[in-house]
Amino acid sequence: MMDQPPRIGRLESGARDAITDVAGVTVGHATLADGAVQTGVTVIHPHARDPFLHKAPAAAAVINGFGKSLGLLQLEELGQLETPIALTNTFSVPAVAQAQIARCIAANPEVGRAWSTVNPLVLECNDGYLNDIQRMAVTAAHYDAACAGADAEVAQGAVGAGRGMSSFQLKGGIGTASRRAALTSGAQYTVGALVLANYGVQANLLWDGAPLGRRLAAAQQAQIEAEKGSIIMVLATDAPLDARQLRRLALRAAAGLARTGSVYGHGSGDIALAFSSAYTLPQQPGAPMPAVALVHEALLDPLFQAGADSVEQAIVHALWHAEAVTGRDGHRREALRPLLQAMNK
Amino acid sequence: MMDQPPRIGRLESGARDAITDVAGVTVGHATLADGAVQTGVTVIHPHARDPFLHKAPAAAAVINGFGKSLGLLQLEELGQLETPIALTNTFSVPAVAQAQIARCIAANPEVGRAWSTVNPLVLECNDGYLNDIQRMAVTAAHYDAACAGADAEVAQGAVGAGRGMSSFQLKGGIGTASRRAALTSGAQYTVGALVLANYGVQANLLWDGAPLGRRLAAAQQAQIEAEKGSIIMVLATDAPLDARQLRRLALRAAAGLARTGSVYGHGSGDIALAFSSAYTLPQQPGAPMPAVALVHEALLDPLFQAGADSVEQAIVHALWHAEAVTGRDGHRREALRPLLQAMNK
Amino acid sequence: MMDQPPRIGRLESGARDAITDVAGVTVGHATLADGAVQTGVTVIHPHARDPFLHKAPAAAAVINGFGKSLGLLQLEELGQLETPIALTNTFSVPAVAQAQIARCIAANPEVGRAWSTVNPLVLECNDGYLNDIQRMAVTAAHYDAACAGADAEVAQGAVGAGRGMSSFQLKGGIGTASRRAALTSGAQYTVGALVLANYGVQANLLWDGAPLGRRLAAAQQAQIEAEKGSIIMVLATDAPLDARQLRRLALRAAAGLARTGSVYGHGSGDIALAFSSAYTLPQQPGAPMPAVALVHEALLDPLFQAGADSVEQAIVHALWHAEAVTGRDGHRREALRPLLQAMNK
Amino acid sequence: MMDQPPRIGRLESGARDAITDVAGVTVGHATLADGAVQTGVTVIHPHARDPFLHKAPAAAAVINGFGKSLGLLQLEELGQLETPIALTNTFSVPAVAQAQIARCIAANPEVGRAWSTVNPLVLECNDGYLNDIQRMAVTAAHYDAACAGADAEVAQGAVGAGRGMSSFQLKGGIGTASRRAALTSGAQYTVGALVLANYGVQANLLWDGAPLGRRLAAAQQAQIEAEKGSIIMVLATDAPLDARQLRRLALRAAAGLARTGSVYGHGSGDIALAFSSAYTLPQQPGAPMPAVALVHEALLDPLFQAGADSVEQAIVHALWHAEAVTGRDGHRREALRPLLQAMNK
Repeated sequence: MMDQPPRIGRLESGARDAITDVAGVTVGHATLADGAVQTGVTVIHPHARDPFLHKAPAAAAVINGFGKSLGLLQLEELGQLETPIALTNTFSVPAVAQAQIARCIAANPEVGRAWSTVNPLVLECNDGYLNDIQRMAVTAAHYDAACAGADAEVAQGAVGAGRGMSSFQLKGGIGTASRRAALTSGAQYTVGALVLANYGVQANLLWDGAPLGRRLAAAQQAQIEAEKGSIIMVLATDAPLDARQLRRLALRAAAGLARTGSVYGHGSGDIALAFSSAYTLPQQPGAPMPAVALVHEALLDPLFQAGADSVEQAIVHALWHAEAVTGRDGHRREALRPLLQAMNK
Repeated sequence: MMDQPPRIGRLESGARDAITDVAGVTVGHATLADGAVQTGVTVIHPHARDPFLHKAPAAAAVINGFGKSLGLLQLEELGQLETPIALTNTFSVPAVAQAQIARCIAANPEVGRAWSTVNPLVLECNDGYLNDIQRMAVTAAHYDAACAGADAEVAQGAVGAGRGMSSFQLKGGIGTASRRAALTSGAQYTVGALVLANYGVQANLLWDGAPLGRRLAAAQQAQIEAEKGSIIMVLATDAPLDARQLRRLALRAAAGLARTGSVYGHGSGDIALAFSSAYTLPQQPGAPMPAVALVHEALLDPLFQAGADSVEQAIVHALWHAEAVTGRDGHRREALRPLLQAMNK
Repeated sequence: MMDQPPRIGRLESGARDAITDVAGVTVGHATLADGAVQTGVTVIHPHARDPFLHKAPAAAAVINGFGKSLGLLQLEELGQLETPIALTNTFSVPAVAQAQIARCIAANPEVGRAWSTVNPLVLECNDGYLNDIQRMAVTAAHYDAACAGADAEVAQGAVGAGRGMSSFQLKGGIGTASRRAALTSGAQYTVGALVLANYGVQANLLWDGAPLGRRLAAAQQAQIEAEKGSIIMVLATDAPLDARQLRRLALRAAAGLARTGSVYGHGSGDIALAFSSAYTLPQQPGAPMPAVALVHEALLDPLFQAGADSVEQAIVHALWHAEAVTGRDGHRREALRPLLQAMNK
Repeated sequence: MMDQPPRIGRLESGARDAITDVAGVTVGHATLADGAVQTGVTVIHPHARDPFLHKAPAAAAVINGFGKSLGLLQLEELGQLETPIALTNTFSVPAVAQAQIARCIAANPEVGRAWSTVNPLVLECNDGYLNDIQRMAVTAAHYDAACAGADAEVAQGAVGAGRGMSSFQLKGGIGTASRRAALTSGAQYTVGALVLANYGVQANLLWDGAPLGRRLAAAQQAQIEAEKGSIIMVLATDAPLDARQLRRLALRAAAGLARTGSVYGHGSGDIALAFSSAYTLPQQPGAPMPAVALVHEALLDPLFQAGADSVEQAIVHALWHAEAVTGRDGHRREALRPLLQAMNK
C-alpha cells in the first residue's frame, strides 16, 4: 500500500503524470550536491522554439509575495513568457537571470540594441537550511546545462532547484503531475504542474486529506519550526487560454496547496504561474497575430479542478521522491518515504 | 459521534466559537421564508459605535471575482469600513445598499451634503435555486430589522442571508467560528469568521479532510450539478493590524475554503473580507489619529492559521446547522445532518 | 478665437468627435432639472444587440478608488460587459442597478433562474453640491428613458448624469471626443471617450496646457474648495483588443486627466473603463467563440495616444458645453465659456 | 529667461529642491563613461542606518509594467524597503542585485542562514541607445562606490544610472526636486522626487505645459522615434504614511509624468515608488513596533500635489542638467539647453 504515493482526486493523469504531458513542454535540471553546496537550477521550456521570438501566453498569481522572483512585473503587464521558466535558490536569481539574458542575446543579437531587451524570468525558494546559500554557487554554466538537458522525462525530488529544498521539515524539492480535463463541450485538455516545494509546518501536513503531519510530529518529537519556506507552482496547459484566463488558472494552485496543509505562511513566497502551449505570440509586430478562439469562460471548471489536483499531486510527488540530504553545518532533512514505512509497520 | 460537528485544526476556540468572540462584534439576521421567497439579510457590526464616524480598518481579498458585491472598490483604496457589513442575495444588493445609505444619512444628516458620501458595503451570493430572486423581496425594513437584532449570539444555518443558500447541493447558509492565536511574542488574539456558504460541487466535499462528498454523491445518486454558487467569508480580529495586513489575513480564507473541497469554481464569487476591532479611524480630519503599534509582520502566522481554520470551521457549522428548505418551484435542499446519520447507521 | 474649444493633440477626430464615432456605440441621457433636483442618468450602449447575450470585452483601471461604482469586481475577473454602462449620481447607484437587473430579466427571463445572474454596471460621481442627492430622485423610469433615447448624437454638458456635476468649481458634466489611431502596421482604428467630469481644484485647471485655472481663480476671487469630485472616463474602440489590453488602454485616461490639472485627489473617484466593439463573447457556452486576431502589443502606442487625447478633449468639451446651473440651497456653478469671453475682452 | 529651468506649480521647494530635502535621505552615483560604455548606478538611502535592520515603509505603483525591475513583489506584500533603492540599466539588474545581497550579508552575517534572506531592490531603464548594454559593464564595485559616495548633494543629468539614458530623443538621466506640503491641519511635510528619465516621444514634450516638443521636432527635422524608454520615479516624504498611503502617493507620479507629455507608452516601464522616513519597522520580531499616528486620509491632497509637482520638476531638471553624450556606434543625444537657447535667439 505504501509502494505508491496517494492519487489525488478523481481526474485521469496524462501518460507521464507530469507537466510534460502537455505536448512540447520539456524540463531540465542542473544539480549541485557537494558538501555545503546543495542546490541547483530547473528549467521549463514552454515549447521547442525560441521563446523570445515565439512568446507563450502566461500569467502569474501571487498568493503570498514574500519572495524575490524576477520577471513577474512584465509578465503581468504583457501576459507573455519570453524566456524559459527558471527555478533556483533565492541568492542565485541574479546569476540565472544574467544567464538568461546572455542566452537570449546569443540567439538574438539585436536584443538590447535594435530590439527591445528581454525579460528574464527566475522564480526562487530559499534552500538556506541545507545549502550554503551565501556562496551563490549557481553559475551560467549550470543554467545552460539545465537547458541543454531538458526532456519530457522529469526527474523528481532532490534534483535541480529542488536539491536543497525542505518541505514540512522533511526533504522537499521538485514534483510534477498532470490531469486531463474533459469540458462539457466535449473538448479535452491537459493541465500539468511542476512545483518547487520548500514550505510547510510539519504538524500541518495533510496527505490526501489525512492529518499525516500530526502523526509524524508525534513520532519524531522534533522541534516545531516556523514556516520559512516558499513554493513555486508552474502550470502548463494545451487549452487555448489568454493571460487573464491563465491568471485564473494559476490561482487555483492555491487550492491544491492549501489541501496539503499550507495556510500561505507569512514567510513563504507562494507563487503560481500558468502558461498555454496552444499558441504563441510573435516578437515582431509585422508578423501575423494568431486568430485564437479561446475556451468559453463558463467551461473552465474542469481546467481549474485539474490545476488544483495537479498541484496537490505534484507536491505529493515531491515529498515522495525526495531522498534524504545532508548539507551545510550537518543540517539534514529526512526523506518521507522511510518514515511512512516505519509508521506503517 | 455524529452529535457534534468535527473540530478543525489544533487551535482553541473562543467562548462562543463565533465571530462575536472578537469583543464588540455583533451579528443580526432578517429571514424571509414564505413559499418561493426564501432569502434574507445578515448584518455584521464591527463595533457598537457609529461605523461612519469610527471607521474600522479593513481589507478584502478577491479570490474569484464572479460576484456583484458593492463597496469593495473604496474599501481597497482606503482600507476602512464605514457601514456595517451586509450580506444578502445577488438581486437585493441595491435595496440593501439604499437602506445603508438611508441609515447613514439618518445618523449623519450632512452625509452627501457638507460631508462626503458614504460607501455602502453589501456582499452577496445567488440563492436563486431555492429563492425566487427575481422578486427582489428584501427591503430596507429587513435591513433595519437585522441591524436592530444584532447580538453576540449568532444563529446559524438557514437564517438571514443564508436562508436560501445551497452548498454542495445541500442546504448551506450562515456559519461562524473562532480561533485563538498565540503569538510567539506572548500576545494572544482572537480571529473569528462568519461565512455565507453557497458554493461547492457535492462530490468534492471534504469534511475535515475526509472525502465525504464522494460517499454522499454515491449514496444520493443525484445528478451532479455544476458549481454555480459563491461564498462570502468575513474575518474579524482584535489584533492591531492595518489594511495591508488585513488583506493578507483575508486571503488565508482561501486556504480554509480549499480544504472543504473548493477549487474556486468559475461561477463562484469567492470573496473574503477582514477587519480589526483593535482601533478605529475618525471620519473628521480634525480628530486625532490613533497611535497604533501594529503586530510585527513576522508574528502573523498564528493569525493566518486561525483565519484559515475559522473559515473551514464556519463552513462546517453552516452545513451542520442548516435545516432542509423547500423553496420556489418545489426546489429543495436537504440538510446534511440527517444524511450523515443515515450513512453512519 | 473663443468660438471653439481648443483642439487637443495632433491626431484627427472621427466625424462627430464623439465616442459614437466607434461604430455601433450609442449614448442616451435622462435629465432631471427641477429646483433642488439636478441630476440624471447617462447610458452607453456598446453595440445594438442584447449586451447580456453578446458581451463586449472590457476592462477598468482604477486610478483612485474613492468611489461607489458597482460592477467592477466581475468586470475585472471576466473582462466583459453584460449590461449597458450606466452613469449617475452616487446615491442613485442602487436604483439604476435595480433597473439594469429588471431590464435584463425582461429580455432574458431565465436570468437568476436557469441562467446565472447579471452584473449591473453603474459608475457614479457625487453631484451633491448642486443636487439634493439625499432625495435619490433617479428611478428605473429614468434609466429606461436614457436607454430608449440612445443615439449616435451625444448631447454634452449639463445633461444626463452630468446635470448636477461640478468641475474646477465650474459647471461640469458630460463631454465626449474621439481620435483616429494609425498603427505602423497600416491599420486604422478609432478611440472614443465619454467623461462624466466632476473633479478639479480651480486653480489647477490646465486648458490645453495653459494655466487657465490660476487666471480664473485670480479673476473670481472665489474661495478655494478642496477636491471633492470624481471623474468617470469611458473609452470605446473598434480595435480588436482583449481585456488585458483594454485595461492598458483604460489606464491611459489617467494621462489625459492629469494634463487638465488633476493629481487624482484623495476624494476623487477617478475610474476609467475601456471596451472594444470589434467582437463579442457569447453568453451561452455552447455557442462558438470568436477567433480573434488581436492587435500586436508593440503596435498599441497610437491607441494609447488616442485614448489620452480623447479623454483630455472630452473634458474640455464637458467644460465648454456645460451651461450654468443653480440647484439645491441656491448653490450655483457658472459656465466656463462666458468667463473665458470676459477674460479675453 | 533661459538661465533657469521652469518652476512647476505653486508649492515651495525645500532648501535643495532635491529628494534629499527629506531629512536623512542621501543619494550616490557611480558613472561609467568610456566609449561604448555609458551607464552607471544610482543609489538612494532612505536613512543613515542599516536598511535591513530598520525597514522604511514603502510601496510602488506600476503605471506600465514593461520593465525588469527586481524586488517589487515583496515590496508590495510587506510594504517595506530592506536595501537602499538602486537604479541601473536593464541588463545590469543582476549584478547590482548580487551586490546588494553581498553588502547585506556583510553587514548581517546571518542573512540567508538563521535569518531570512534579503530582498534586493533594483529598478532599471534601458540605456541601450547610447550604452552597449550587452556588455553588462556595471559591477558590484560600482554599486559599492555609489553607496559610499551617497550625500545630500545630488548631481543631476548624465550621471550615475542616468549616464546613458535618453528622454524625448534628447539626453535624459537623473533629475530631482522637492516640494513642501502644508496640510489643512497645520502640519508641514516635505515630498522629494528623484527620477531616472529615459522615456518620451520628442514631438509630445510639454515644458511646463507648453508644447516645446512640436517646436523641437520641427527645428530638428529628426526622424520620429517610437517610445522605447522607461522612467523610474522615486518619492520620499517625512510624512508618517503607511504602505497603503504610500502607494497612493506613488501613483501621483503618473500625473507629473503625464504633464510632460507621456501617455505611458507600451514599451516604457513607468514605475513609481514612495517611501516614508518618518519611522522604521524593526527586522527582529522581538523589537518593539513603533506606535505611529498616520496622516488622516482626508488630509493627503497637499502631499499628492507635492508628489506630482516634484516628479514633473525632477523630469525638467533631468533634461535641463543633462549634457550631450556620444556613446556606442556613434549614437549621440543632444542636451536640451543649447537647443532651447538656439530656439530663443
